[in-house]
Amino acid sequence: VKDMVLAFAAAWNRHDMDALAALFSEDAQFVNVVGLWWKGKAEIKAAHEFTHGTLFRSSRLEVSDVSVRFPTATIALARCSWVLEGHVNPEGTALSARNGILLIVVQHDGHRWWIIDSQNTDVIEGVISRPQ
Amino acid sequence: VKDMVLAFAAAWNRHDMDALAALFSEDAQFVNVVGLWWKGKAEIKAAHEFTHGTLFRSSRLEVSDVSVRFPTATIALARCSWVLEGHVNPEGTALSARNGILLIVVQHDGHRWWIIDSQNTDVIEGVISRPQ
Repeated sequence: VKDMVLAFAAAWNRHDMDALAALFSEDAQFVNVVGLWWKGKAEIKAAHEFTHGTLFRSSRLEVSDVSVRFPTATIALARCSWVLEGHVNPEGTALSARNGILLIVVQHDGHRWWIIDSQNTDVIEGVISRPQ
Repeated sequence: VKDMVLAFAAAWNRHDMDALAALFSEDAQFVNVVGLWWKGKAEIKAAHEFTHGTLFRSSRLEVSDVSVRFPTATIALARCSWVLEGHVNPEGTALSARNGILLIVVQHDGHRWWIIDSQNTDVIEGVISRPQ
C-alpha cells in the first residue's frame, strides 16, 4: 500500500499521467485541494494532464509520514504529508513551496491494489480554520 | 450511511460535541480544511469543542449531494458538499458563507456504522489549484 503512495509521487514527478491514471480504478473519485470533485479514472487523468501541462509541468512532489491502516484485509487507508515545489501560477511565475495532506483509499481485487478514492487538502499554517 | 452524514451535520448544528464524537471510532482520523491531522476520537472531539466554542459557536452546516459507495459490505465511502454559515473570525467578526467537500469512511462492526476516517477540503471557486 505504501508503494501506491510512492508510485503516485513517482508518476507525478515523471509527469507520466498514463502511469498515474493506471493506479486508479475505473470508478475512482478524487477531490483536489480546491474542492474539484472528479468522478472516474478518465476525469482524474484529464485533470492531471491539464495541470501537468501547465501549473505543474516542472513541479516535484515529495511525500513523507505515510500512515497506512487496514480496516479490512482488502481495504487500506493511506495518508501522507507532501511538499510541492517547482510549480508556477497561470501566468508562469514561479511559486514558493506549499504542503498538504493526501488521503488515498485503496482496494485489493485479488490481483493488485487500486486507488478507489482520494482526497487532498492544502496545509495552511498557523490557523485552525480557513482564513477569509 | 447517509444518516451518518446527516447525524454529523445535526450534531454540528446543535454544537453537541458529545454526539459528534460518538459517531467516530476510537482510532478514527480526521484531516480538517487547513490540514490539521487529528488522530483518535479524543483529538477529534477536543478540536471540535474548541472551534464550536469560538469560530463555529453559532455556525450552521448544510450538507447536500451525499454520494455513497460500498467497496465492501462493511465499508462505505460517503462524500457530500457543504455550506457553512454564521461563523466568525478569531476577532468575532461575521464571515460570509463558505463551502467545501467532506469525505467520511465508515465501517460496520456488526452492530452499527462508525466513522473511521474523514478528510475535509474547502472549495475555492474559479481555480484548478490553490492561489498563492
